[in-house]
Amino acid sequence: MITSPSSLRRSERSRRATLDAALELCTEKGYGRVTVEAIAARAGVSKKTIYRWWPSKGAVLLEAFTEALVGATPFVDTGDIAADLRTHINGAVRLMSTAPYGPAYAGILSEMHHDDDLAAAVRDQLVGPRVEGAVARLRGAQEQGQIPETADLPLAVEMLYGPVYYRHVLRKPAQDEATVASLVAHVLRSLGAGE
Amino acid sequence: MITSPSSLRRSERSRRATLDAALELCTEKGYGRVTVEAIAARAGVSKKTIYRWWPSKGAVLLEAFTEALVGATPFVDTGDIAADLRTHINGAVRLMSTAPYGPAYAGILSEMHHDDDLAAAVRDQLVGPRVEGAVARLRGAQEQGQIPETADLPLAVEMLYGPVYYRHVLRKPAQDEATVASLVAHVLRSLGAGE
Repeated sequence: MITSPSSLRRSERSRRATLDAALELCTEKGYGRVTVEAIAARAGVSKKTIYRWWPSKGAVLLEAFTEALVGATPFVDTGDIAADLRTHINGAVRLMSTAPYGPAYAGILSEMHHDDDLAAAVRDQLVGPRVEGAVARLRGAQEQGQIPETADLPLAVEMLYGPVYYRHVLRKPAQDEATVASLVAHVLRSLGAGE
Repeated sequence: MITSPSSLRRSERSRRATLDAALELCTEKGYGRVTVEAIAARAGVSKKTIYRWWPSKGAVLLEAFTEALVGATPFVDTGDIAADLRTHINGAVRLMSTAPYGPAYAGILSEMHHDDDLAAAVRDQLVGPRVEGAVARLRGAQEQGQIPETADLPLAVEMLYGPVYYRHVLRKPAQDEATVASLVAHVLRSLGAGE
C-alpha cells in the first residue's frame, strides 16, 4: 500500500489528538466514565478510526500512559547506579502520583483484571520493556563493578518497583525523595553492592 | 439495650452466612457482578440487615478477605525472624493467588479508587493493623539482636509486601517459596541483619 506523506502526518496528528483527548477526559470525568465515543468526539476523529488502532479505551490510555512513563523515567547512565536509580524511581513516583497519569494507570490496573487482552498489553507494551530496561541498567553497573556478578537483578527490580505500586494501589501518600533514596540504598545493599 | 443470647447467636450466624455468600458469588460471577441483593438472597438475610452492618458490597468482601488473611498469615515468633517472615509472606502470597480471595481483593483494590470510604476501611481495617503486626514482629527480632537497632522497619515491611502486591496487580505469576525465601533474605540483608 502506498501512503502519501500528508496522510501519514494526519495519522500521527490523529493519534496524538486521541491520546490527549483520552487523558483530558480521564482528568475531567474519571477513568470509569471515559468512553471511546467521547474520546472520538473530543479528538475530532471517528470511532471507527479509534477502533482501527486500539481495541478499547483501556488500550488508548495504556499507550498514553506508556509514552508519558517512558519520557519521565529514562534509564540514564552517569556511572553512578544509586543516583541513576533514584532519578528513575523518582520519575515513576512523580508520574504515578500526578493526574491524569496516576488515576489513568489505576483505571488500567483495575480493568486488567477483567480484560485479558489489556492485561497482556500492559505486560508486553509497558511492564516487560521497562523491566528489561531496568535489568539492562543494573547489568551495566555489574560490568562497572558496582554490583556483584551474582546479584539477582530481576528480584532487585521488583524490590524497587514493588513499594511504588504498593503505595499507588493502596492510595497511600507517594514516596518523597528521601524515601526513594533510602529504598534505592537498601536494595543496592541487599544485592551486596558497595561492600 | 439488652440483647438475648439467642439473638446474638443469630447475628453471628447471619454475619458468617453473609461473608460466605459474598465469597461464593465472587467465585461464581466475578467481583463486578456481585450485588448486595444477591448476597442477601444467598445468605438468607434481608438487604436491610446487610446495610445495617456494612455500607457496601466492597465492605462485606473486605471483612471476608481480612478474616481469611488474618487466619492465613499469623505473626509467629519461633525466634528465627527469617523463617517467620517466610511463613508470613508465603501465607499472604498463597491467599492472594487463591480464588475467591485473590480476585475478591483485586476487586476491592479497584473499587477503592472511586470509593473513599472503602479506601479508608482498607487502610484502617486491613493494611494498618497488618503493617503494625509486621513492624511489631520485626521489633521483636531487634530486641533479640537479629536486626540492628537503627533498621527502618516500616521500609522493610514495604519491601516485603511491595513485590507481592506488584505481581498481584499486574497479574504476574505469584512468587514460589524459593522466591519468597530469597526476597526475605534480601530484605534482612538490606537492614544489615546477620552481618
